[in-house]
Amino acid sequence: MSDRNHESGVRSSGGGAASPPVTRLLAEYLVRSRWEDIPADVRHEAARALVNYLGCALGGSQDAAVDTAIRALSPFSGPAVAAVLGRSERLDPLHAALMNGISSHVEDFDDTTPQNYIHPSSPVASALFAYAAANHVSGRDFVAAFVLGVEAESRVGNAVFPAHYDVGWHITGTAGIFGAAAAIGRLRRLDVQQMVWALGLAATQASGLREMFGSMGKAFHPGRAAQNGYASAVLAESGFTAGERGIEGARGFAAVQAATYDLARVTAAMGTDFNLRRNTYKPFPCGIVNHPTIEACIALHDAHGTPPDSIRAVRLSVAPLVLDLCNQQNITRGLQGKFSVYHGAAVGLVRGTAGVQEYTDAAVNDPAVRQVRERVTAAGDASLTEDQARVEVELSDGRVLRHSVEQSLGNIHRPLSDEQLSAKFRAQAVLALPAAQVDTALDRCWRLADLDDAALVVEASVPAPAVASSGGVSR
Amino acid sequence: MSDRNHESGVRSSGGGAASPPVTRLLAEYLVRSRWEDIPADVRHEAARALVNYLGCALGGSQDAAVDTAIRALSPFSGPAVAAVLGRSERLDPLHAALMNGISSHVEDFDDTTPQNYIHPSSPVASALFAYAAANHVSGRDFVAAFVLGVEAESRVGNAVFPAHYDVGWHITGTAGIFGAAAAIGRLRRLDVQQMVWALGLAATQASGLREMFGSMGKAFHPGRAAQNGYASAVLAESGFTAGERGIEGARGFAAVQAATYDLARVTAAMGTDFNLRRNTYKPFPCGIVNHPTIEACIALHDAHGTPPDSIRAVRLSVAPLVLDLCNQQNITRGLQGKFSVYHGAAVGLVRGTAGVQEYTDAAVNDPAVRQVRERVTAAGDASLTEDQARVEVELSDGRVLRHSVEQSLGNIHRPLSDEQLSAKFRAQAVLALPAAQVDTALDRCWRLADLDDAALVVEASVPAPAVASSGGVSR
Repeated sequence: MSDRNHESGVRSSGGGAASPPVTRLLAEYLVRSRWEDIPADVRHEAARALVNYLGCALGGSQDAAVDTAIRALSPFSGPAVAAVLGRSERLDPLHAALMNGISSHVEDFDDTTPQNYIHPSSPVASALFAYAAANHVSGRDFVAAFVLGVEAESRVGNAVFPAHYDVGWHITGTAGIFGAAAAIGRLRRLDVQQMVWALGLAATQASGLREMFGSMGKAFHPGRAAQNGYASAVLAESGFTAGERGIEGARGFAAVQAATYDLARVTAAMGTDFNLRRNTYKPFPCGIVNHPTIEACIALHDAHGTPPDSIRAVRLSVAPLVLDLCNQQNITRGLQGKFSVYHGAAVGLVRGTAGVQEYTDAAVNDPAVRQVRERVTAAGDASLTEDQARVEVELSDGRVLRHSVEQSLGNIHRPLSDEQLSAKFRAQAVLALPAAQVDTALDRCWRLADLDDAALVVEASVPAPAVASSGGVSR
Repeated sequence: MSDRNHESGVRSSGGGAASPPVTRLLAEYLVRSRWEDIPADVRHEAARALVNYLGCALGGSQDAAVDTAIRALSPFSGPAVAAVLGRSERLDPLHAALMNGISSHVEDFDDTTPQNYIHPSSPVASALFAYAAANHVSGRDFVAAFVLGVEAESRVGNAVFPAHYDVGWHITGTAGIFGAAAAIGRLRRLDVQQMVWALGLAATQASGLREMFGSMGKAFHPGRAAQNGYASAVLAESGFTAGERGIEGARGFAAVQAATYDLARVTAAMGTDFNLRRNTYKPFPCGIVNHPTIEACIALHDAHGTPPDSIRAVRLSVAPLVLDLCNQQNITRGLQGKFSVYHGAAVGLVRGTAGVQEYTDAAVNDPAVRQVRERVTAAGDASLTEDQARVEVELSDGRVLRHSVEQSLGNIHRPLSDEQLSAKFRAQAVLALPAAQVDTALDRCWRLADLDDAALVVEASVPAPAVASSGGVSR
């Protein structure tokens, strides 16, 4: 210590002793919970989340952000023992965790728990797949670690939401590191003291600013959360100490990173309530407020066929917020398309789908899409929620087609089915894997809890020849 | 983006457009400043800071925190091209930066700018020495990058201090990462756009909680700042993008991490005012409020000789804050000694010195030290500042010795001389280096700006045979 304030910092930590010891209580739960304690519905939701995650990681794995990060950092990589999802490169597991995290979030297509805006799977599963690529892990241990990692990050996030998010923290990064630390700590079989330190080292590295949205920095956040959470567990296992009250201390995560918080939410109904039950999966890789419009347009395409040249005008009635957020019409780049309700309507009507390939630069500049996009107008209607939209299409023969959506597909009341999740997976996986390998990866991911070795999923999730020579991959 | 708030985050960033573009202005300065623009007194202060830094890094390099971090993380290290200061291990440069950062801060003996409580050298020099261990850097480029790195972190820190520190951020970690990114970005010759991204990636990784004080986590902060700042520069160089307004944006570093801040301080008198001019160096590796007491006791030892058995009582008059912070008398561990004004008085009187070796477990349990420590009493006196102390020693023959200190050695008005910095260096360096090598390292560090290759300092700062076979080290 070098000055009086450093010392008063030490004193203040003691002053926080009145707070419940949630770091230790959470650590005890993470260490002691058994596979048998995880209910069947939660195990199934974990499988759904992992299928959704892996599809997104594959779909994002060819993005320029991943190319750039690998090019920049691979000279610093340790032994190349861990396959990176969707890529031919192998890196050390910490760097693989970073790359998996970037891949799985870069398309903004991954899962969300609406209660706290966390994208829960990316930080946790990115670390776990990197770990499993280089170490033997049973499928059951993998899934248990995933469920508990999601619990850790969700509970920490719940405690500081919404003040923490509102001030500008990207909660997927800040809470996510706790999840990665918990998950890897679980696989490393940390004892309670080590888990307390792992959570403390996570707390003191929690970072990620919403100012990065719109840049590669956004997807960097769950990547670093996965990487640094993983490192936190490894350090703690070796005896690297941290403060004992990383979450609840007077100078700990909650007090420093949130103007108001509720520590009781860290431990509320721990062991019976599982945050994965409130997870949601996006059907379209774009701003969620565009989703009901897109869905209505796809329904019109499928019911009527809507050749671009036959479309004279498209009139949208949407919640006013939609125009606030997604009002870009004259666009030229894929990323802009994600913020354009007009583009969403156009691809729905022209292509009858709105997947990753509808948000490329090429799709945004597709003449047929552009022609329809320019004929779309939108009006805010305060009687509509953001889950609702009404679409009118006026055809050149004078007919007017109408479709309304009352509750958007993918929201918590109308979740994607398992089959829809599989279709979403396939549409993304083909961007990274040979077609013949896609269903192998998908099938293994659904059955992950029953596999003897989680690496089987990783092996199927990198470009061939991974499947052909399974013994030679990533061990 | 996956929900409305994500999108409003993007909007808010635009909403911060009224703030001056300090990220870009700072980047322009960092990119364009020339060696000739750095005044001679600042160059000399840089040499003093680097000598002080390197001594601390060597003195801390054998600490358990460093052993533990190397044990835990070396399996993940990339090519072992970078020597770690004071250690025989080599790691990739990013991991070497981490270890240098831990070593140089773990004894709490490194420098401080009192205006913002930043320990400025650790994050910046730790990255630079790791870089120079693996890449050719002229001494002049190294020193210029150091000066500019310190400017970057100091200016960002000045803008958010004191609110940022008071809420619980360890500013050496949070501001430090900007310094490391700037310094390495400078050596990599980033252009302005790349430097903006490097600062943005630094902003979004800024972390470190004061809750970690008293654990290894504290020294981890400048280590991660060095490592992650270094990585920020490398990523930005490759084109990994970040938000353009990482410091001043509505969801940027200042707004998110400080309740109040003054962005004008980022750019005030840039190019003419240098924060290194306000740097201070500690003479003793313990709480700074103990320093005047220790100094008085050493003076009494040197003037009178004070054999432990001759000491009947020691009466201290100190500022009341000292008793608030450093009132531990019954102690058994070295770390506790740093927070004990009684221990400081005892080692001063018994040993006539208070270096790193006076704050080991062995020193705290040394019977002679303990005997005197138990005879020390302290009284708060509100008329004294924390830079002042009065000491009375009553001897067994009845004599009473007195010494007062009016202004503590090492404060900004009474800085350590170059000779005292050299002595401080030597006392620490012998803990890591063969005695014959200590003066080589010291001499090269003083002359760093004139060296053709900064690696010469690194080579002299690792255990032999580094000096004997200079060609084989760390290139």
